[in-house]
Amino acid sequence: MPHWKFKLHEVIYEADTPAGKVFDIALLFVIIISVILVMMESVSSLLEKYSYAFYVAEWVITAIFTVEYILRIVAINKPKRYIFSFYGMVDLLSTLPSYIGFIFGGANLLFAIRALRLLRIFRILKITRYIGESRKLVNALNNSRAKIFVFLFAVFIICIIAGTLMHLVEGEGGGFDNIPLSIYWCIVTLTTVGFGDIAPITPLGRLIASFIMITGYGIIAVPTGIVSAEYSKATEKPIKNTQVCPNCNESRHLDNAEFCHKCGYLLNE
Amino acid sequence: MPHWKFKLHEVIYEADTPAGKVFDIALLFVIIISVILVMMESVSSLLEKYSYAFYVAEWVITAIFTVEYILRIVAINKPKRYIFSFYGMVDLLSTLPSYIGFIFGGANLLFAIRALRLLRIFRILKITRYIGESRKLVNALNNSRAKIFVFLFAVFIICIIAGTLMHLVEGEGGGFDNIPLSIYWCIVTLTTVGFGDIAPITPLGRLIASFIMITGYGIIAVPTGIVSAEYSKATEKPIKNTQVCPNCNESRHLDNAEFCHKCGYLLNE
Amino acid sequence: MPHWKFKLHEVIYEADTPAGKVFDIALLFVIIISVILVMMESVSSLLEKYSYAFYVAEWVITAIFTVEYILRIVAINKPKRYIFSFYGMVDLLSTLPSYIGFIFGGANLLFAIRALRLLRIFRILKITRYIGESRKLVNALNNSRAKIFVFLFAVFIICIIAGTLMHLVEGEGGGFDNIPLSIYWCIVTLTTVGFGDIAPITPLGRLIASFIMITGYGIIAVPTGIVSAEYSKATEKPIKNTQVCPNCNESRHLDNAEFCHKCGYLLNE
Amino acid sequence: MPHWKFKLHEVIYEADTPAGKVFDIALLFVIIISVILVMMESVSSLLEKYSYAFYVAEWVITAIFTVEYILRIVAINKPKRYIFSFYGMVDLLSTLPSYIGFIFGGANLLFAIRALRLLRIFRILKITRYIGESRKLVNALNNSRAKIFVFLFAVFIICIIAGTLMHLVEGEGGGFDNIPLSIYWCIVTLTTVGFGDIAPITPLGRLIASFIMITGYGIIAVPTGIVSAEYSKATEKPIKNTQVCPNCNESRHLDNAEFCHKCGYLLNE
Repeated sequence: MPHWKFKLHEVIYEADTPAGKVFDIALLFVIIISVILVMMESVSSLLEKYSYAFYVAEWVITAIFTVEYILRIVAINKPKRYIFSFYGMVDLLSTLPSYIGFIFGGANLLFAIRALRLLRIFRILKITRYIGESRKLVNALNNSRAKIFVFLFAVFIICIIAGTLMHLVEGEGGGFDNIPLSIYWCIVTLTTVGFGDIAPITPLGRLIASFIMITGYGIIAVPTGIVSAEYSKATEKPIKNTQVCPNCNESRHLDNAEFCHKCGYLLNE
Repeated sequence: MPHWKFKLHEVIYEADTPAGKVFDIALLFVIIISVILVMMESVSSLLEKYSYAFYVAEWVITAIFTVEYILRIVAINKPKRYIFSFYGMVDLLSTLPSYIGFIFGGANLLFAIRALRLLRIFRILKITRYIGESRKLVNALNNSRAKIFVFLFAVFIICIIAGTLMHLVEGEGGGFDNIPLSIYWCIVTLTTVGFGDIAPITPLGRLIASFIMITGYGIIAVPTGIVSAEYSKATEKPIKNTQVCPNCNESRHLDNAEFCHKCGYLLNE
Repeated sequence: MPHWKFKLHEVIYEADTPAGKVFDIALLFVIIISVILVMMESVSSLLEKYSYAFYVAEWVITAIFTVEYILRIVAINKPKRYIFSFYGMVDLLSTLPSYIGFIFGGANLLFAIRALRLLRIFRILKITRYIGESRKLVNALNNSRAKIFVFLFAVFIICIIAGTLMHLVEGEGGGFDNIPLSIYWCIVTLTTVGFGDIAPITPLGRLIASFIMITGYGIIAVPTGIVSAEYSKATEKPIKNTQVCPNCNESRHLDNAEFCHKCGYLLNE
Repeated sequence: MPHWKFKLHEVIYEADTPAGKVFDIALLFVIIISVILVMMESVSSLLEKYSYAFYVAEWVITAIFTVEYILRIVAINKPKRYIFSFYGMVDLLSTLPSYIGFIFGGANLLFAIRALRLLRIFRILKITRYIGESRKLVNALNNSRAKIFVFLFAVFIICIIAGTLMHLVEGEGGGFDNIPLSIYWCIVTLTTVGFGDIAPITPLGRLIASFIMITGYGIIAVPTGIVSAEYSKATEKPIKNTQVCPNCNESRHLDNAEFCHKCGYLLNE
């Protein structure tokens, strides 16, 4: 591995050196701008006014992302490892849309291509690298993942049953025209979102809706209780002092102990 | 009990052997398809197009369920135990609708029969057999069931009182025409669902609504706190001291015990 | 106190004897019916059809409540203690409305009187007597009351500030015509109720609304955390064993300890 | 520092003496009235009727606040410390609006000035001084601030991704005309607010919405779990052992300590 490659790898892939930090923050900045650009392009009034500016900005960002992608491949000894990693795929997909739009052209196709461009948003996920706290959160979620999944599955079954019931009770004509729609309404209601675009009209439907709502309000306690317990367990500090008294073998000592509290023998000779 | 019956029982009721596993997963697959079919039939545009396909699929699934039901009765020594169990009833009820529709016929009746068919959805509950984690969740819920029930009852009383108050304040004409409707609105609001099909218009009504909302937002902490505490208690580690008295075999000792608290014998010679 | 009075007191005020239990459950039944009657009377279509039945039922319930109220006064030695207690006041207020309607008459006045009748609903609060679990809940809430109050007060201040901000940003014409209305909207949003009768239209208003919603979603954790911690503390069992070793004075013993675990001395001579 | 200045400082800045308490409560009263006045002025029907009364009340409150501000500066030895403190800035900003309106005049300008007046609401924050419990809450929030921030950031990223997805799926014409709007809808949905002014119409959009809602319902457990754990840790009892070594004065000992762990001296002679 030549020196320049080693240096490049340090700058691009690591964030310990000043140069690496500058690179990462600059890249983050470009990513945020690219995300904001995609958002602004979707606003039709802005697109009409500044269509040329958007066009230029798109190509500038595409150029930057292309150079970055090539450098990433060059800087690593086993490029396949990067290319087929999650971030490698995301990097490639967020670079491609402009090129595809250039080659195939056509107004209709451009819309579908713009869809691919939106994947560039995944780039922003890199931000989590900068925040150390996120690891603790992820651990807490990982430990309780299985239980929360079972819970959400149970919630989904309740929604299917309650949804079909509501379809039968409310009948067609209102918003409960078919079972999938009723299940959708049930999820909206049980999660206490409650859009109100669909709402029961019949007294019996409203009674069932009341039960669904109270159920949703009551069982939200379950995932919370699980995460709380898992998180408490994770952050509990065990006594880490491993001193054992050479005289009486007492093993539980305070961190600053110098003598055994059981027999008075000197601990650290 | 002949060998084939023993073998059949193993396949149908158990999931330890490969054959049993295949049977259970295949059955689960058929149940999911039957649930999806019922959902799709309820979408009128699909029903018009594919009514014949639905008709055939219905009878195929009914046939599979019928065979399964007979096999279950045959494979067990005391069939009554299965027939009158919860799953036995559900299995029977999810098999019947097509037959009832065939015998009694008539377009109007068919709708009511379709209602019974929806019970087939309860079959999906069998899925929980496959997920071990669900038991822990059920335990956590069971321990806090009484307290959460009292809580939800208190919530219901608050809703009755606040509902009648809102009916008096908002008067008729808006959505608070009668007390049951106002109570329904109150449940919608207190559980933070908030459809918006009914909403207070008078200033006083809005003031009371604000209090109801803040109450709902504040007391959601109660069930959560209960479940958290119960769940923490359930996962708390028992006394880890492994000393056993060499004299009387008592095994539960305090961490700093030197003598057996049962017989006074010296523990650590 | 004559024997019949003692007997009557036992039946009416206590629930230990069979007669007392029957009385309480019968009364509860009448109260629930009276609550349902008030609800049904408020539904105009039902009132038109069954106005005579409602009239009769009203007087029957009023008669029962009157007899009960007199018996309660007779059965107690110091009637003032009952009359001026919370339940005494509620019992009286739930008996009066029919009499007031009879004496003063008039269609318009009857409506206001019906308002008083609704207080009869408070009778239902007696139900809590039958459920022992409620005490634990009330304790948990009492301990965390002060903290939750401070929290809700902070929420209210946030609502005032955010409400005035929204009024200025959204301006008049939409639903944010004045500050009290904007504060109401803010409470609806922060508590995640979200009726949707008022919703921001301007981009800046929607940005602020997003912050309010995320704040509401994030800080709901606070009351929950408080109640969880208080409840955990409350249900933690302290070591209740009060034995002290007569030899070495060690005071922390397991519940079934017979010998001191410190010196081996016999605890219970 | 002359005696009157010392006395004044005691009355204005402290709340231990009766005079100080009276001053603080009176000031609180004026602040609440000023907040209510600003609210009432924003209601156009009230403003038309009582415009003169509002004018007078505005100047009375401005006068009181001006006198208070001057007294605060006079009563302190280092006025800069007060003037540039948070409360000093708020006090000044809540006094200025009326003067600015008087000097510059003009109907249009008055509206913008009224905006500044609304800052007077921040005065109400002083109320927290009177409630000691708030400190515990603030501590609990401070400890979990970083983690909750990371969580809310993750929520925001989910909203960006889901928002762009919804824009593509629902297309223009409905409420998902552009990406910022779709992200706004996503925040409304994920936080379980659910206004309903924007709601998905296409089946695929509704399916994605269901996932967003269930996600929002499930992950609300995370901040709650964090705060619960932090709060539990904060309220945990410290080591209660009151033994102090007679030799080296070390005061932190394990509950079952017999010898000082610092110097080996016998603790309980």
